Amino acid sequence: MSGEFRQIAWIRGQTPADPRVPIGPGDDAALVELQSRGLLATVDMLLEGVHFSFDEATPVDVGRKAMNVNLSDIAAMAGTPLFALLAVGLPPGSPTSVPEGLFEGLKEAADRFNVAIIGGDTNSSRSGVVVSVTVLGEPHPKGVVKRSGAKVGDALMVTGKLGYSRLGKHLSFTPRIAEARRLHECCRLTAMMDLSDGLGGDVFHLTGESGVGAVIHADAIPIADGPHDDRSPLQHALSDGEDFELLFATPPEDAERLLIDQPLADIGVSLSRIGAVTRELGVRLRHGDAETPLEPSGFVHHW
Amino acid sequence: MSGEFRQIAWIRGQTPADPRVPIGPGDDAALVELQSRGLLATVDMLLEGVHFSFDEATPVDVGRKAMNVNLSDIAAMAGTPLFALLAVGLPPGSPTSVPEGLFEGLKEAADRFNVAIIGGDTNSSRSGVVVSVTVLGEPHPKGVVKRSGAKVGDALMVTGKLGYSRLGKHLSFTPRIAEARRLHECCRLTAMMDLSDGLGGDVFHLTGESGVGAVIHADAIPIADGPHDDRSPLQHALSDGEDFELLFATPPEDAERLLIDQPLADIGVSLSRIGAVTRELGVRLRHGDAETPLEPSGFVHHW
Repeated sequence: MSGEFRQIAWIRGQTPADPRVPIGPGDDAALVELQSRGLLATVDMLLEGVHFSFDEATPVDVGRKAMNVNLSDIAAMAGTPLFALLAVGLPPGSPTSVPEGLFEGLKEAADRFNVAIIGGDTNSSRSGVVVSVTVLGEPHPKGVVKRSGAKVGDALMVTGKLGYSRLGKHLSFTPRIAEARRLHECCRLTAMMDLSDGLGGDVFHLTGESGVGAVIHADAIPIADGPHDDRSPLQHALSDGEDFELLFATPPEDAERLLIDQPLADIGVSLSRIGAVTRELGVRLRHGDAETPLEPSGFVHHW
Repeated sequence: MSGEFRQIAWIRGQTPADPRVPIGPGDDAALVELQSRGLLATVDMLLEGVHFSFDEATPVDVGRKAMNVNLSDIAAMAGTPLFALLAVGLPPGSPTSVPEGLFEGLKEAADRFNVAIIGGDTNSSRSGVVVSVTVLGEPHPKGVVKRSGAKVGDALMVTGKLGYSRLGKHLSFTPRIAEARRLHECCRLTAMMDLSDGLGGDVFHLTGESGVGAVIHADAIPIADGPHDDRSPLQHALSDGEDFELLFATPPEDAERLLIDQPLADIGVSLSRIGAVTRELGVRLRHGDAETPLEPSGFVHHW
């Protein structure tokens, strides 16, 4: 029995029988049973030396994050994640603690949202660990929330606080799955996305897809606490990225209600109105009475 | 507009509207519509320097193969592939011809089987190209064919010829999707898998999952043509791997009929009976009247 055979046996032991998964790890493909005709699907790949370093993150951290970034994408559509597939590249000679830690983190995040790991592929990697996760989910019965539906006059809102994610949140964030569903059920979400590249970049994606512009009120952006450095807190909030909070558009009367009701307060998540959707294209940043055009920042890779 | 924005626009231009895909590339997740409650899912990752080298394969070759290895996994379940998600890592400074060639190969293989590319993720890679493909498919109305159903007395059969794949077939093989479906419709397939690691390794997976053993008739193995070297043609057939043919078990009377009818002859694919399923565990290789135990060969990574 080779090391790989043992690895398969180990992974099978970690993925217990699930009535939703008639065929799990071990065959050429997995077979799952769906309750919905609609299926959400997303993929994200994390690479060592680009997205993470084992100087700063443990294998468990990396595994958890690799799962959570995908769960965040399903949240951004107001969907429910169901299944995950893993593809992992490992440098030859990696200690067993690396794949086991990765899997522990992947499974911890999956279990938290009742996501079944249904299959995977492990490979040698010439240099560095690579983790690619695909998550499948079902849309909300009310339908999905796209990036492209924001209407002129809508309020722009965010969950939580932005900026300084690299201090630790980027490894330990909570995908806003429950939050997105609750918002979708209580009000009219015209457009939504998760903030992965930073508000200063992502707001261009939501408005660009919607064919509208936006004005952002700098003073209204909820900013996380962080140490003083050569960049302002506002710059951190706009361009650090990896907040994994929700950015959404909703009619102003729904926004008013959300600000008063704060329906996510019981799970410790604030809601802030940071601006409004405009007919004029582009994004402007308002400081008091002054407006300056915002230049897109952050990086874009997901398509 | 950054390079990444242009890349997304380019990819969108390559993935035309498809009625099965209400939301394709460009949102946080894709949304697809399914006709079946059952869903097949598989993932495979190819890494430069491990699975391929650009000295031997073009970006188009690599893209085609990355898609086809996954299509072959869906074929192995007798399913029909429908959708694909891509995750790609590219070294900074890669010429545009690399991602464009990869995508051309991925799309060529997908289009051939009417598979829609519904989303993806492109990243920097610290060193070397990484391509991970997830394929989703639907099971045959008759059900799926697993690795685990082979019965004592069944014949073991293969499509096509084995060995010497590295001479070129490993980059240009045809996933046996149509072949698997046709076999599933015309006879009782008790177990099936695709040959990726080589018959000498893969036969242990099929028999192991089925809780049976096998005897393989060395003289009955259909071997591809190849040059003389220090290994026998039989060794090539058993352990080269990457044949991407089907190995299946079927009752002896169905095997007889398949050998006479050769129902895949019109698409140029032969069917050969290479042995039989035995109660005795393990795999024995028969040369004339002599039997020797076969030791597992090849490598195993898919789970």
